[in-house]
Amino acid sequence: MKERDDRIFRLVVSKMAVERQGEELPQVLVLGPPWVFSTLESQFPNKFHFLKPWDSELSLHQFLISYAQSTQALLIPAVIHTLNSAILDCLPSLKLIITTSAGVDHLNLPELRGRGIAIAYAGNLYSEDVADMAVGLLIDVLRNVTAGDRFVRQRLWPTKPDFPLGLKLSGKQIGIVGLGKIGFEVAKRLEGFGCRISYNSKTKKPLVPYSYYSNVHELASNCEVLIICCGLTEETHHIINREVMLALGKNGVIINIARGAVINEKEMIQCLVEREIGGAGLDVFEIEPEIPKQLFTLHNVVLSRHAAITTHESFVGMSKLVVENLEAFFSNKPLVSPYMGY
Amino acid sequence: MKERDDRIFRLVVSKMAVERQGEELPQVLVLGPPWVFSTLESQFPNKFHFLKPWDSELSLHQFLISYAQSTQALLIPAVIHTLNSAILDCLPSLKLIITTSAGVDHLNLPELRGRGIAIAYAGNLYSEDVADMAVGLLIDVLRNVTAGDRFVRQRLWPTKPDFPLGLKLSGKQIGIVGLGKIGFEVAKRLEGFGCRISYNSKTKKPLVPYSYYSNVHELASNCEVLIICCGLTEETHHIINREVMLALGKNGVIINIARGAVINEKEMIQCLVEREIGGAGLDVFEIEPEIPKQLFTLHNVVLSRHAAITTHESFVGMSKLVVENLEAFFSNKPLVSPYMGY
Repeated sequence: MKERDDRIFRLVVSKMAVERQGEELPQVLVLGPPWVFSTLESQFPNKFHFLKPWDSELSLHQFLISYAQSTQALLIPAVIHTLNSAILDCLPSLKLIITTSAGVDHLNLPELRGRGIAIAYAGNLYSEDVADMAVGLLIDVLRNVTAGDRFVRQRLWPTKPDFPLGLKLSGKQIGIVGLGKIGFEVAKRLEGFGCRISYNSKTKKPLVPYSYYSNVHELASNCEVLIICCGLTEETHHIINREVMLALGKNGVIINIARGAVINEKEMIQCLVEREIGGAGLDVFEIEPEIPKQLFTLHNVVLSRHAAITTHESFVGMSKLVVENLEAFFSNKPLVSPYMGY
Repeated sequence: MKERDDRIFRLVVSKMAVERQGEELPQVLVLGPPWVFSTLESQFPNKFHFLKPWDSELSLHQFLISYAQSTQALLIPAVIHTLNSAILDCLPSLKLIITTSAGVDHLNLPELRGRGIAIAYAGNLYSEDVADMAVGLLIDVLRNVTAGDRFVRQRLWPTKPDFPLGLKLSGKQIGIVGLGKIGFEVAKRLEGFGCRISYNSKTKKPLVPYSYYSNVHELASNCEVLIICCGLTEETHHIINREVMLALGKNGVIINIARGAVINEKEMIQCLVEREIGGAGLDVFEIEPEIPKQLFTLHNVVLSRHAAITTHESFVGMSKLVVENLEAFFSNKPLVSPYMGY
C-alpha cells in the first residue's frame, strides 16, 4: 500500500513539475530515441520545456493524454516509424513536427497535410557529410580499404599473398541516381577524381553538364558505379533490382547513402553472392537496424550503421537548426528549414 | 649416387635451356618476389628471355655467376632491399635497372650512378591511384568507415549505442607534405570537397594557389590533416616527429601513402595511444611488412598493406611500361620513364 502511495506521490510531483515548467517555457514534445537530443537539452536549458515520455513511468499514450494536450511542437530526433494516427490523435494542438533527418519517408505526409501540421527538417544541412561518406564508401569498396585493414589485423600480411587487386576510381563512369543537393555534391567531388558523371532523375536538369538517362536501367548499362542519392518514394521503392544490377555488370559497384528500400536488398545480396556485381558500400538497409546475415560474410561489401550524417559538425549544426526552427515557430515567424514537398 | 647424377643432369639441361633461349631473345634478369612480374611473362612470351633465380636450385650468387654475366637489364618487380654491391659485382654487364615502384629509396643511387647504370621507374603511372587511396584513407579515418564496418560485423549495431561521431571532411584545412605529382593529385581531389589546401616542399612552387609553409611544423600548426606525399630521403627521414604531431593537435589526422620512415613511427604510435592526435591512415610502415603490434589494438587507425598502387589498371599499365622501357633499351632508344633525379 505504501509502495502504491509513493508511486502516486511521485507521479503527482512529476506532473506538477512538468506543468510548472510548462507554464514558463514553450512546450516541445520529444519522441523517439533521444541520442541526438541529449546535448540539445543541456545546450539550451532555458529556452524550451521538453516533454520526455521516456523519463516517465506512464505508457506513451497515457503520457500524451496527461501532458501533451496543448503541445504545439513535436521534435523527432531520430528516424522513427511509430508516428501513427493513434499518436497524432493524442496531440490535438500539434502544429509543427521537426524531424532531424534529411529524408521524410518516415512521415505520413498526406495525413500531416490533412491535419494542417507543418514540417521542419534537416534540409541540406547534411548534404556535404553524406556526399563525403558516399565517396569514402566508393573508394573503400573499389580499393578494398576495409577488407585490407581486416586482412592486416588478422596478421595475414604478407603470409597470405593472394589479396585481390583493387579497381581504379579515376576515370570511372559514375551513375548518380537522384541529382538533388546530395547527388550534386557527390558529382562535384568525383569530378576532382577525373570521373565521368551521368545521372538519372525524374526530369533532365537544365544547365547540368552531366549525361542524363531517363531510366536507371539505361544509366546502369552505361556506368561502372551507381550511387543512390534519391529519396525513398513509391516510385523509387526497389527501383534498383536484379535487372539493373545485371546491366551494371560484374565489376559494377553500388553505393547507397539514401534509403535501404530503394534497392531490392534480397536481389542485391544474391547478385553480390553470385558475383553478378563487384561490390557494394551500404550505409542503409531495408529494415534497420536488421542487416541480412549473408552480408556479414561478404568481403566485397562495406557495412555502415546509417552514419553518413554523423559528424560532430552536423550534430552541432542540427542542434542549432532545431532551436532556430522552434524559436521561429513560437515567434510566429517563417520556419528556417521548412519541408515544402507535400 | 643416382640422385646426384639426376640433379647434375637437370642442372645441365636447365643451363642449356637458359642459354638456348638467351641466344634468341634479349636477356632480362628478374630479382625479388615475382608477383607483379607473374602476368608480364605470360603476356609477352616471345619478347624477352627472363632469368628467374627463384626457379633455380642454385644460390642467387651462383645463379648470377653462371647465367647473368652478359645480362644488361635487370627488372625489380617489387620493392626489395637486397640490391647491394655484392649482387652488382656479379653483374658486370648491367646497364639498366627497371623498378616498378614510384619511389627509388630502395636503390643505392650514388653507387648506381658510379657504375653508369640507368634507372627506369614507374614515374607518374600510379599517381592517380595513390591519390585516390590517400583520400579514401582520409575519409575512412575521419568518418570511422572501417571501424564502423567492424562494429556492424561484430553485431554491435544497435545494441551498443555509443559509437563515436566522426569529423567532417568538407572545409577542412589540409596540409600536403611534398607537392609533387601525387601531392597535386591529392590537392585537386580535396578541392572538390571544399577543403583548403596548404603545402610544404623544398621550395615554393610557382603558379600554385595553395598556401606554402617552409617547414612541416608550421604547416602542421595551421592544418587539421597532414597527408604525406614526399619521397623518402635523408632530409625527409622522420620529418614527422612528436613535435609536428603535437602542433597538428588532438583532432589532427595523418595520412601516409609515401614511405613509412618519413614518420617517426614510434612517436606516432605514442601520440595515437595517448590521443595527442586524432587518428591515422597508414599505407606504409617503417619496416615492412612488420607492423608494430600496438597499431592492431587502435580503432582510430586504418591499416593498409602498402596497397596504394594495387589496382588492375595500374598492374596492366606497369606491365606495358616495363615492356616499353625494355624495348627502348634494347633498340638503343631513350627510356620511356627514366629516373633523372640522381
